[in-house]
Amino acid sequence: MSNIDKVKEIFSKANFINDLGIEINKIEVGYCETILSIKEKHLQQDGFVHAGVLATIADHTAGGAAASMIKDTQTILSIEFKINMLRPAIGEELICKAKVIKNGKTISIVDSEVFSIKAKEEKMVSKAIVTLAVVNVIEKQ
Amino acid sequence: MSNIDKVKEIFSKANFINDLGIEINKIEVGYCETILSIKEKHLQQDGFVHAGVLATIADHTAGGAAASMIKDTQTILSIEFKINMLRPAIGEELICKAKVIKNGKTISIVDSEVFSIKAKEEKMVSKAIVTLAVVNVIEKQ
Amino acid sequence: MSNIDKVKEIFSKANFINDLGIEINKIEVGYCETILSIKEKHLQQDGFVHAGVLATIADHTAGGAAASMIKDTQTILSIEFKINMLRPAIGEELICKAKVIKNGKTISIVDSEVFSIKAKEEKMVSKAIVTLAVVNVIEKQ
Amino acid sequence: MSNIDKVKEIFSKANFINDLGIEINKIEVGYCETILSIKEKHLQQDGFVHAGVLATIADHTAGGAAASMIKDTQTILSIEFKINMLRPAIGEELICKAKVIKNGKTISIVDSEVFSIKAKEEKMVSKAIVTLAVVNVIEKQ
Repeated sequence: MSNIDKVKEIFSKANFINDLGIEINKIEVGYCETILSIKEKHLQQDGFVHAGVLATIADHTAGGAAASMIKDTQTILSIEFKINMLRPAIGEELICKAKVIKNGKTISIVDSEVFSIKAKEEKMVSKAIVTLAVVNVIEKQ
Repeated sequence: MSNIDKVKEIFSKANFINDLGIEINKIEVGYCETILSIKEKHLQQDGFVHAGVLATIADHTAGGAAASMIKDTQTILSIEFKINMLRPAIGEELICKAKVIKNGKTISIVDSEVFSIKAKEEKMVSKAIVTLAVVNVIEKQ
Repeated sequence: MSNIDKVKEIFSKANFINDLGIEINKIEVGYCETILSIKEKHLQQDGFVHAGVLATIADHTAGGAAASMIKDTQTILSIEFKINMLRPAIGEELICKAKVIKNGKTISIVDSEVFSIKAKEEKMVSKAIVTLAVVNVIEKQ
Repeated sequence: MSNIDKVKEIFSKANFINDLGIEINKIEVGYCETILSIKEKHLQQDGFVHAGVLATIADHTAGGAAASMIKDTQTILSIEFKINMLRPAIGEELICKAKVIKNGKTISIVDSEVFSIKAKEEKMVSKAIVTLAVVNVIEKQ
């Protein structure tokens, strides 16, 4: 399985990602971009997108970016992330752009930014740094 | 409106929290506890609860704990949080326990731990430290 | 070499820790406590202890706590930490209390709190969560 | 006092920064760059620069960047930061480049990267995201 297919699988098999409606926009080596059409169900008490939605798209897209650089016998696993909310997220869509900043043997570090799109204007709404473990999986026969 | 009512409102009016199924278990001054019955839709590609679900319950419950200590003319807003995933989350339920560790005039800091319940055994699956802004809202007439 | 000796070595051989004046107060399995006598040189522009001093004692003491639980052929390495400053640090001494909250095979997670002591009153001034890698070192012959 | 002077003052009056040897390299609106000549005293047990040194230069330079954008009646204060160590820091010098990514009324968020310089080669050794409070100070008469 190619790394591109591996990234696609991480998205297609993740129920929570499908339930939210997060889709892949672009995959390159060390980079993953996703998109989410904002619905009523994504909002919090004040009408803005919930920080949990921003955290979910930031974390999962970071996983996609990290997975684009691993070996065929490896998988990735989020160890931790920190996310700063820069401004209220509002608009029609969220775009997440995740870029690997360190591709180590056992640890991958990814910069993951989320932007809101409102009337074609793109604004950064959150910035996360995600640390992932690169794990060797037992090979299937 | 009492602070307990304020916390309840933060939960009842947040679509994303209702959509996920997160409910209040307990509210005290400086403390909030929530519960989530784990469903198929909360899972990620490997069958464990998605880190985004852990982040959402950790962040929102932290907001509940912070809101229990603010003035009637204030509201709270997550500035940032960092979450460590300690082990895969699996089981019947998640419980989140959030405790205010610093209740400042403009900043509240909350320790927010998530536990999975499997066959009555409780295990910590994530730990987050959440920073929130305490914001003065324009009073309604 | 015992783990207690390993922790002591991590302190005695670290120039920066000696230069600052950080000393071990207590070591137990999964726990490390250190002390620093506050000097003029530790201060920042406003007369409070510099956040960098808090970060240094928090990180290194976390390393001590993690090292108390590893195998003889392993060493530890900070991957990342996040530190919240709760209030200005002022007084005669800093005490750091670091407790392992997850001792994994390859990752250790440590809760590391710093307290200032002023006129015998202890106040928490910062809280950090530190992620460390547990690394297998090539055995010496 | 101009903002450039304000940034310079934050460095000149901070004992810990002078003790370590951190110096300003460049100041622009929303940007601050510093340099540190690596000495024996900055090292940890394994001969690399201590994470506490990286944290100190990252935090303080972020403060410089934030201070370059505030009003004359304001000051800045680190609320929290998270730092990822990307690789062991070794060489002759450290350079820190801090850039404001959100300049809010009460909160400033700064991206702060540290690079090591070894035989003229520059490598990123840590990346921090720093959250600072923008505080109104009582005006002097």
